[in-house]
Amino acid sequence: MDEELSVWLSGAAGCLALAFGFYKSRWVIKRDPGDARLREIGAAVREGAHAFLYREYRVLAIFVVLVAILLSLSYQAEQRLVALSFAVGALCSAVAGYVGMVIATAANMRTTQAARTSLNEALLVAFSGGTVMGMSVVGLGLLGLSGLLLAYTAQFGFDIQTLNTTVLPVLSGFAMGASSIALFARVGGGIFTKAADVGADLVGKVEAGIPEDSPRNPATIADNVGDNVGDVAGMGADLFESYVGSIIGAMVLGAAAGSVELVLFPLVLAGTGIVFSILGTFLVKTREGGNPQTALNMGTLGAAFVMILCTLPLVMFLVPETFSLDETTYQRFGVFGAVVVGLVAGVCIGLLTEYYTAETRGPAQRIAQQSQTGPATNIIAGLGVGMVSTCLPVGCLIGAVLIAHHFAGLYGIAIAALGMLATTGIQLAVDAYGPIADNAGGLAEMAELPPEVRGRTDKLDSVGNTTAAIGKGFAIGSAALTALALFAAFREQTGLVGIDVTKSRVTGGLFLGAMLPYLFSAFAMGAVGRAAFKMIEEVRRQFREIPGILEGDGRPDYARCVDIATRAAIREMAAPALLGILTPIGIGLVGGAEMLGGLLVGTTASGVMLALFMSNAGGAWDNAKKHIEADNYGGKNSEAHKAAVIGDTVGDPFKDTAGPSLNILIKLMSVVALVIAPLLV
Amino acid sequence: MDEELSVWLSGAAGCLALAFGFYKSRWVIKRDPGDARLREIGAAVREGAHAFLYREYRVLAIFVVLVAILLSLSYQAEQRLVALSFAVGALCSAVAGYVGMVIATAANMRTTQAARTSLNEALLVAFSGGTVMGMSVVGLGLLGLSGLLLAYTAQFGFDIQTLNTTVLPVLSGFAMGASSIALFARVGGGIFTKAADVGADLVGKVEAGIPEDSPRNPATIADNVGDNVGDVAGMGADLFESYVGSIIGAMVLGAAAGSVELVLFPLVLAGTGIVFSILGTFLVKTREGGNPQTALNMGTLGAAFVMILCTLPLVMFLVPETFSLDETTYQRFGVFGAVVVGLVAGVCIGLLTEYYTAETRGPAQRIAQQSQTGPATNIIAGLGVGMVSTCLPVGCLIGAVLIAHHFAGLYGIAIAALGMLATTGIQLAVDAYGPIADNAGGLAEMAELPPEVRGRTDKLDSVGNTTAAIGKGFAIGSAALTALALFAAFREQTGLVGIDVTKSRVTGGLFLGAMLPYLFSAFAMGAVGRAAFKMIEEVRRQFREIPGILEGDGRPDYARCVDIATRAAIREMAAPALLGILTPIGIGLVGGAEMLGGLLVGTTASGVMLALFMSNAGGAWDNAKKHIEADNYGGKNSEAHKAAVIGDTVGDPFKDTAGPSLNILIKLMSVVALVIAPLLV
Repeated sequence: MDEELSVWLSGAAGCLALAFGFYKSRWVIKRDPGDARLREIGAAVREGAHAFLYREYRVLAIFVVLVAILLSLSYQAEQRLVALSFAVGALCSAVAGYVGMVIATAANMRTTQAARTSLNEALLVAFSGGTVMGMSVVGLGLLGLSGLLLAYTAQFGFDIQTLNTTVLPVLSGFAMGASSIALFARVGGGIFTKAADVGADLVGKVEAGIPEDSPRNPATIADNVGDNVGDVAGMGADLFESYVGSIIGAMVLGAAAGSVELVLFPLVLAGTGIVFSILGTFLVKTREGGNPQTALNMGTLGAAFVMILCTLPLVMFLVPETFSLDETTYQRFGVFGAVVVGLVAGVCIGLLTEYYTAETRGPAQRIAQQSQTGPATNIIAGLGVGMVSTCLPVGCLIGAVLIAHHFAGLYGIAIAALGMLATTGIQLAVDAYGPIADNAGGLAEMAELPPEVRGRTDKLDSVGNTTAAIGKGFAIGSAALTALALFAAFREQTGLVGIDVTKSRVTGGLFLGAMLPYLFSAFAMGAVGRAAFKMIEEVRRQFREIPGILEGDGRPDYARCVDIATRAAIREMAAPALLGILTPIGIGLVGGAEMLGGLLVGTTASGVMLALFMSNAGGAWDNAKKHIEADNYGGKNSEAHKAAVIGDTVGDPFKDTAGPSLNILIKLMSVVALVIAPLLV
Repeated sequence: MDEELSVWLSGAAGCLALAFGFYKSRWVIKRDPGDARLREIGAAVREGAHAFLYREYRVLAIFVVLVAILLSLSYQAEQRLVALSFAVGALCSAVAGYVGMVIATAANMRTTQAARTSLNEALLVAFSGGTVMGMSVVGLGLLGLSGLLLAYTAQFGFDIQTLNTTVLPVLSGFAMGASSIALFARVGGGIFTKAADVGADLVGKVEAGIPEDSPRNPATIADNVGDNVGDVAGMGADLFESYVGSIIGAMVLGAAAGSVELVLFPLVLAGTGIVFSILGTFLVKTREGGNPQTALNMGTLGAAFVMILCTLPLVMFLVPETFSLDETTYQRFGVFGAVVVGLVAGVCIGLLTEYYTAETRGPAQRIAQQSQTGPATNIIAGLGVGMVSTCLPVGCLIGAVLIAHHFAGLYGIAIAALGMLATTGIQLAVDAYGPIADNAGGLAEMAELPPEVRGRTDKLDSVGNTTAAIGKGFAIGSAALTALALFAAFREQTGLVGIDVTKSRVTGGLFLGAMLPYLFSAFAMGAVGRAAFKMIEEVRRQFREIPGILEGDGRPDYARCVDIATRAAIREMAAPALLGILTPIGIGLVGGAEMLGGLLVGTTASGVMLALFMSNAGGAWDNAKKHIEADNYGGKNSEAHKAAVIGDTVGDPFKDTAGPSLNILIKLMSVVALVIAPLLV
C-alpha cells in the first residue's frame, strides 16, 4: 500500500470516530432531560464540572506553554518541532476530556429520566454518553497523530532514515503532551472526587444520618461533579495516553527495524480498531428484565473477536514477510501473534481483576467474613487480597512480554500493548458508562424520584462496577506494556547497547525508580486526606449555620463545596505530577541515559505492583461492604458493616486516586525519557 | 600478614566472642531468679519456647538433610563440599538462635527480679542477656566461616585461582544454610508471636476486659514465648545471615579482584568488630533515674566510632595499595571510605526509621491526630507515613551504593554492607535487649509484683522500642547492601558480562522478582490471620469452659495455647519459605543466569521498598497508639484510642512478621543464586 495513503486512511478513521461521536452526542442531547427539579440539579452538576475543568485547564495551559518553550529552547533545528507535537498532544487530550465530560453530565440526567420508563432506554443513553467519550479519545488521538505525521513527512520526507532520526523523535512529543495532561487530570480529578465523596459520606451519612445523595447534603453536588471529572474525564485522559503511547512506541520500534511498513502498521491497526469499535456499539442493547452486563460484553468481546479475525489479512497485506530487529529475524505472522497475545493477556488481567474484586467471588466475600471480628481484620484481609492479587496478573504480563518478544522482538511487545488497546473506542465507552449510570442513580435520589427509577439505575450501576474493575485491570496491563514499549523505544533512540543493572549507577537509578511510586502514592493519599478534611469542616459548618438545612427547608450552599474541592485539587495535583515529569529529566541530564533506563524499569516494575495492589484492595473492600449490605453477616448497620465501611473508606483513595494515577506515572516517565533521548546521546 | 594467620586470628576473634558470651551467660544465670511465683511463670515460658524450637528444629533438620543431599547430588567433585558448608551454616545459625533464646528466657525473669531494687541492675541483666545473643551470633558466624575456610584451603590450597573457582563457591553454602534457617525462623517465629499477641489482646483485653499480661489470660504465656522465639531468636538468625552474607559477598568480590588480601580483609574486619563490640558492652551502664537510652547509645556509638578509627590502620596494613575490578583501578583508601560510607548510611537509615516511628516525632503524632476522626483516617495516615518513609532511607542506600562503588567498585558495596554489620555483636545485644525488657515487664504483671517494678521495666522497655526501630532500619539497610553484594558476587561467579534489563527475559525476571515480596507478604499475613483466629477460638473456649478462670480461681491451660501457636507457625512457615528458596532455583535452571539476575534485582528493589513501608507504618501505628495512651486526644479508652488500637493491630503483622521477613527473603534469594551459580555457567 502507498505510505501516505495508509496515514490518510488512519486519519480518516479518526474522523469517522469523531463523526460517530458527534452523531451520538446529538442523539444524547435530544433525549428528554426530565422535569424542572432534575434539570436544576443537572445544571448545578454541569456548572460545577465546568468550573473545575476551566480552572484546571487554565493552570495546565500555563504549564503547557512553559514546557513547550523549554522544549523549543532545548532542541536544535527541526527537532524543535517536538514542542509543537507536545502542545497538540496536550490540546487533543484536553479536548477529549472536555467533550467526554460535557456529554457525561448531559447523559447523567437523561439516563435518570429514561430510567423512569425503560431499562433498555436508560442503558442506551448511558452507554451512548460513554461512547462519545470513547470516540473522542480514539478519534482525536489517531487524527492528531496522523495529521502531525503527514505534516512532518511532507516537510522532511518519508524514508526510513528520516523517520528514525527526525520525524518520530519529534512526533513522540505528542505522547508526552497527552501524558502530562493525563497525569494532572487523573491526580486532580482523583483528589476532587475523593475529597467530595469522603466529605459527603462522613458528615452526611455517618454524622447527620441523612441518606446517600440526599439533596440536603451540601457536598452531594460536589460528589456528583467529582464522578464526572475524576472517573470520566480522568479515565479518558488516561486511556488517551495509553492509546497514543502504545502507537508511538510501536512506530519507533518499527523504525528501528528499518521498515516503513512496520512504522505505519500500528496506525492502520488502530484505525481498524475504530471501525470495529463503532460496529460493536450497535450490539449493546437489552430488554426490560434483561442483563445489561451481557449487552456490554457482547459489544466489547464482539469487537475484539472481529478485530482479531481482521488482523490476519492486515498483517498479510501490510507487514513485510520478514524483518530484523536486534540481530534477530522475525516472520510476518509473529506480528499477528503479538496482537493476539496482547488481547488475550488484557482479557485475562481484566478477568483476574474482576475475580479479586467482585462481590460474588471468594476474595471480597472473605473480607466480608473477616469484618465480623472488626475493622482490623477487615483491613488486614483487604491488604492481603491486594497483595495476592498482584501474582497472576503479573504472570500474564510476563507471559505476554516473553511470547510477544519471541514472536516479533521488542516490536512485538509494543504491538501486544496495541492489541490490548486497539478497541479502546468501545472499551472506554463501557468504562465511562459506569460513572454515568452511577450518577444517574445519584440524580434520581437527589430529585426524589420514585424508587423503581433508582432500582433501574442501581441495576445499571452494579454492572458498571464490574466493568470498571475489568477496565482498571486492562488499564494497568496496557500501561505496563506501553511503558515497556516506550522503554524499548527509548533504548533504540539513545543507541544504548543495553541497560546493565549490575552497574552501580543503574542499580541506584532502579532503586530510586522503585521508590517513586510509593512517594507519589503518599503525596496523592495525603492530598486526599487534606482536601477531605477541609470538605468535612465545610459541611459541618453548613449544617451548623444554615437554618433548616437538615429538614430540607434551608438551601445548602453546593457551590462552596465544589469550590473547596476544586481549589484543593488544583493546588495538590502539582507536586505529584511534577515529581513524575521532573525526575526522569533530572536523572537523565545528571546521571545519563543508562541510569535513566534503570530509573524507568524500577518505576515500571514497582509501580505496576503497587497499582495492582492498591486498585484491587480498594475494589475488594468496596464490594465486601456491598456483600454485607446484601444482608450477609448481619447486613446494614451491623458491626460487620461498620468494619466494612472503614475498609471501604481506606480503599477509596487506593482505588480512585493513587492506584490509577500510577498507570500514568509509569507511562509518563517513559515517554519523557523518550522525548529527551536526543539530548542524552 | 601471613594468609593463614589472619584466618586463624579471625577464628580466634570468633572464639573470643563465644567465650565472652559464655561468661555473660554464667553471669546472667547467677542472678536471683525471684520468688516461687516468678520462677513458676518463667519456667512455663521457658518450656513453651523450648517446645517450639524443638519442633521447629525437627522440621528444619529434615529440610537441611534433604537440601544437603540434593546439593551433593547436583555438584561434581570438590564442589560437593557445598553441602557440608550448607549444613554447617544451618547448624551454626540454629545453635546461635537456640543459645540466644535460652539465655533470653533466663534473663527475662532475672530482669524482673532485679527491677525490684534497681534500674541499673535490671538494665545490666537485660543487656547482658542480649549480649549473649549478640556474641553467639558473631562468634559462631566468624568461627564457622574461618574454620571452613581453613579446612578447605588446607585441602585445595590458598592461591587466588583456587579461592575463586573452588573454595569460595563451596564456602558460600554456609551463607545459604544460615539464610534458610533464618527465613524459617523469622517467618515461623513471626507467625507464632503475632498469633499469640492478637489472640491475647483481642479476647483478653478487648472482650473480657482483663489487663494486658494478666495471668488469667490463657494466651499470655504463649504471648511471652512468642516474644522470645520471634523477636530474639528470629532477629538473631536474621542478623547472623546478614553478617555471614556480607562477609562472603565481600570475599567473593575480593577474589574477583584477584587479591588474596582482599579476600581475607572482610574476615579480619569482622574480627576487629567483635573486639570493639565486647569493649563497647562495658560502656553500657546507668544509675537510678538515669536514661537507659544514653547508656545503650554510648555502647553502640562508642564501638562504631572506635571501629572507624581502627579501620584505617587495618586498611593500610592489609589491603594492597591498588587493586583492579571490572577494568577500573581503585586505591587502598577507597576501602576505608567504603567502610565509613556503610556505617554512616546505616546510622542515617536507623535515625530516619526512628524519626518516622518514634512517639515523640511528627509522623506518629500526626497519625494519633488523625485517629480523632476514626479508624479509617488512622489507617490512611499510617499507610501514608509508611509510603513516605521509603524515600529518604532509599536515598541513603543509593548514596551509599554510588559512593562505595566510586571508592572501591563492587567490592566497596560489599565492604559498605560489612561496615554496617562489623559491630553486629553489640548492635544485636541492644536489639535483643528490647524484647527481654518487654517480657520482664510482662512477667512483673503476671507475677503481680508491686507497681514500681513495672515502672522500672516500662522505662527499660520504652527505650527498647526506639532501639528496636533503629535496629530494624539497620537490618533493612544492611540487607539491601548485602543482597546487592551477593548479586554482584553472583554475576562474577557466573561470568555474565552484564544483566541487561532491555532483554525481555530479564525484564520478565525482574517483574516476577518485584511481585514475589507481595506474594510472600500476603502468605505471611494470611498465616498470621489464620493462626490468630485459632488462638482467639481457643481463648474464648477456655473462658467459657474453665470455671472461675476470669476471677483468677481456675487455672488456664497455658500449654494448649502454646501448642496451637506452635502448630500453626510450623505449618504456615513452609509455603513462604519454600517460595523464597525454590523460585531462584527454578528460574535459574529454566530461564538461565541472566533471567535469574533480573529476578534478584527485582526482588531486592521491590522487597526493600515493601519492607521499609511495612516496618515503618507498623512502628508508627504502634507509637501513635502509645502517644494517645500518654493522655493525648482523650487518652486511653477514648474514640481516638480505639481507632489507634485498630491501626496498631493492622501494623503488627506488618512490622513483626512480613516486614522483617522480607529482609531475609532478598538475601536468601541472592545467596541461593550465588550457590547455584556454578550449575548455570
